[in-house]
Amino acid sequence: MSDGAGITPRASDFSAWYNEAVMRAELADYSPVRGCMVIRPNGYALWELMQRSLDDLFKASGHRNAYFPLFIPESFLRREAEHVKGFAPQTAVVTRAGGKELDEPLVIRPTSETIIYAMFAKWIQSYRDLPLLINQWANVVRWELRTRLFLRTTEFLWQEGHTAHADEADAEREARQMLGIYRRFMEEWMAMPVVTGIKTAGEKFAGALRTYSCEGLMQDNRALQAGTSHNLGQNFAKAFGVQFQTVAGDLDYVWNTSWGVSTRLVGALVMTHGDDVGIVCPPRLAPVQAVVVPIWRSDAERARVLEAATRSVALLREAGVRVEVDARDGMTPGAKYYEWEGRGVPLRLEIGPRDVSAGQAMAARRTGGKSALPLDGLAQRVVVELEAVQRGLLETARARREAHTRRGVGRDELVAMMEGEGGFAYAGFCGGAECEAAIKERTKAAVRVLPDEEFRSPSAPARCVWCGAPSSAEAMWARAY
Amino acid sequence: MSDGAGITPRASDFSAWYNEAVMRAELADYSPVRGCMVIRPNGYALWELMQRSLDDLFKASGHRNAYFPLFIPESFLRREAEHVKGFAPQTAVVTRAGGKELDEPLVIRPTSETIIYAMFAKWIQSYRDLPLLINQWANVVRWELRTRLFLRTTEFLWQEGHTAHADEADAEREARQMLGIYRRFMEEWMAMPVVTGIKTAGEKFAGALRTYSCEGLMQDNRALQAGTSHNLGQNFAKAFGVQFQTVAGDLDYVWNTSWGVSTRLVGALVMTHGDDVGIVCPPRLAPVQAVVVPIWRSDAERARVLEAATRSVALLREAGVRVEVDARDGMTPGAKYYEWEGRGVPLRLEIGPRDVSAGQAMAARRTGGKSALPLDGLAQRVVVELEAVQRGLLETARARREAHTRRGVGRDELVAMMEGEGGFAYAGFCGGAECEAAIKERTKAAVRVLPDEEFRSPSAPARCVWCGAPSSAEAMWARAY
Repeated sequence: MSDGAGITPRASDFSAWYNEAVMRAELADYSPVRGCMVIRPNGYALWELMQRSLDDLFKASGHRNAYFPLFIPESFLRREAEHVKGFAPQTAVVTRAGGKELDEPLVIRPTSETIIYAMFAKWIQSYRDLPLLINQWANVVRWELRTRLFLRTTEFLWQEGHTAHADEADAEREARQMLGIYRRFMEEWMAMPVVTGIKTAGEKFAGALRTYSCEGLMQDNRALQAGTSHNLGQNFAKAFGVQFQTVAGDLDYVWNTSWGVSTRLVGALVMTHGDDVGIVCPPRLAPVQAVVVPIWRSDAERARVLEAATRSVALLREAGVRVEVDARDGMTPGAKYYEWEGRGVPLRLEIGPRDVSAGQAMAARRTGGKSALPLDGLAQRVVVELEAVQRGLLETARARREAHTRRGVGRDELVAMMEGEGGFAYAGFCGGAECEAAIKERTKAAVRVLPDEEFRSPSAPARCVWCGAPSSAEAMWARAY
Repeated sequence: MSDGAGITPRASDFSAWYNEAVMRAELADYSPVRGCMVIRPNGYALWELMQRSLDDLFKASGHRNAYFPLFIPESFLRREAEHVKGFAPQTAVVTRAGGKELDEPLVIRPTSETIIYAMFAKWIQSYRDLPLLINQWANVVRWELRTRLFLRTTEFLWQEGHTAHADEADAEREARQMLGIYRRFMEEWMAMPVVTGIKTAGEKFAGALRTYSCEGLMQDNRALQAGTSHNLGQNFAKAFGVQFQTVAGDLDYVWNTSWGVSTRLVGALVMTHGDDVGIVCPPRLAPVQAVVVPIWRSDAERARVLEAATRSVALLREAGVRVEVDARDGMTPGAKYYEWEGRGVPLRLEIGPRDVSAGQAMAARRTGGKSALPLDGLAQRVVVELEAVQRGLLETARARREAHTRRGVGRDELVAMMEGEGGFAYAGFCGGAECEAAIKERTKAAVRVLPDEEFRSPSAPARCVWCGAPSSAEAMWARAY
């Protein structure tokens, strides 16, 4: 993995490719703490741009940020029966602090429903206080046995939205709205198409009434759950006594939703767009959108191309393009190209002496293709190029997903597909937990979602792919991260 | 503390006033977890604006953000002898995770020198990798016995910069630069004047060579350490083996710096500018810089004033002013004023029917003073008003500090001052740990800093205020938070 050595091709070992692509781009590194990673500046810059975009979308839809404690008293976790069952086995627990054993151990938050709804109980008195729309950017800890950079780490960064509503309809509308915002972010910013839908009872969040999810298809044809949104019903409100006076003057429990995406999205981005050279950043989230590489042989050439490069960078910055110039001495242009390609920079602008004479820069897209752009009006042309790359990435990813989606599969086809090349398999489903478990046992594939209407097949399947009983809903299966 | 009830005046109980001002503005709330607070949306919005401004300053000076693990193996903390002595008594420790006792307990980071420099050892090979300039926004935990909202909490949010340099001069330049950036932020954004200087050996960071600090004077005449910057020398580099090949080809240890500010700054802002009505936000950091309050009696009036208010808000937003309109029904203008004053909004714009007729709005500064502003060109006038409030806050705070600063104090005066009204006391200091301890014992005041040149008295004091031996440096004493 030294300069020019290349990384493992995706086709030969996708998992090795992923790790090497992440390391090559210096997105993250292994830490001395089991299961925890370090997010390096290149990776953090990507996360910051994701955060900024999501945060704007949350605020535009009326949510406000707040911050709640890292620690959750163990007893709080126990108040919601399903919730503790789901999370207790994964918790990290502080038993000693300030040199003393604690009377009550403190759990490091694996998610913050319990501590947040305990506060909501204090803040909400009347229907006038509703809806309460809160979001938190925070670190959480879930003790994982097998970890992967970004995809599954003991500690990770995320946002968790928590809202309270006066009735079920408003909570449901909120849970659905946030799913839509996630989908929009994934498609318009990450250039990652996702299938949305509802989780089965067996796959929903511990403590939720209903869980909605965005599912992406990675290049190894495994699904990745990229974001979830939960209608929590009144479960937590009852556990934490979050009551309010209704318009009619009665006392009722609020309806809650929670929803989250995490640094896992960085891994999703890598696995959606990366190629055998390394990662590819969608322009809207690329910390460096364009790199200008001046090329020279003599000192006289150097002065000319640097002057042109510097002027171009200034104009690009002015137009809001995140651009760097790579004028390092003692390094071949080829070595520079290789480095910036590994970092996933969507556009490279080469400026040599002949380009200066011709009043142009050679633009090389990270996704392939080269063309000369006139230096005159360069910024506008670069903006157009970046938009084209952004659009192209989404189209390519969508086409790849469609190529690996099969509809109306039968039992044998489902097994063959999941044991073979993978992908998204749509089929009828009786809704039974037994069939769901049997399919998982046989194929290692789970129902990712019962897809939303726009993703469903033109005609609803009549029978369950497994037991042949009448289908209650079309389901989408895949092996998943 | 209900509507209109008012809060405890500063003069009668500053500490009660502080808590009530924070609660009234809904900046924070007590949590069910001992020593941990909840940062409510109004407080978090303030913190976000602080973060954004500081982050821009850090990035403009070449620093990049990254993220390191929350957990630190206990053995790491022990590698630097002074560091563990300073922090071990305050740590929270995870001993159980994933249902099992851990082989090695994990400390929740109280600060991240150890885990970060362990990573630096991996990343730094050569002088070409230096300087390495990293910053982290994170939560940290220090087990405190007595906590105060924002000022001292078990968990708090902060940023910690960590850098590595090839030689002492470069590290020293960095530590000094960051102190200057903090000072600039505190004065230009927070409108809080600070005295900068170096800490005595007894007051420096555990593991540092030298600690520099920004010290503000709160309205109760106690000092608040608002930000520190440390030249760590080669202490941590030696403990973690952070070596690099020098230009000459030798192997040497890097020089580190670290520097941080925290959510404590929110408390500092409250205690610098608040009055007996509540908090006062400096405009540059105010989540809401101006509130428009339309005033009406009849429905016909309502339509007219709302129309004018809405138009004004649109123009103000366009000009980049963070503005809200308060058109709530069934609430008197006075009750609205009281609420927005308690939230510290710097400017209120009242628009009644007569104002609409006169083509004006009545502008009331949170810091006092009312004047009519023409609706025509309102945005530009509001921007000017906000700048005036910002400037006025800094001037008032500076004047207050000067009024409570005494120079060349003698022994009795120092004691009387520290037992009396407090403030900043400048005097000669022999530099001896015995004198420092004796003064602290007698007056509860510590040397806050040996002030930087621009803050020192015109003529250097000749003798130590306590023992009468020759003074080695002028010192500034105060009781502190």
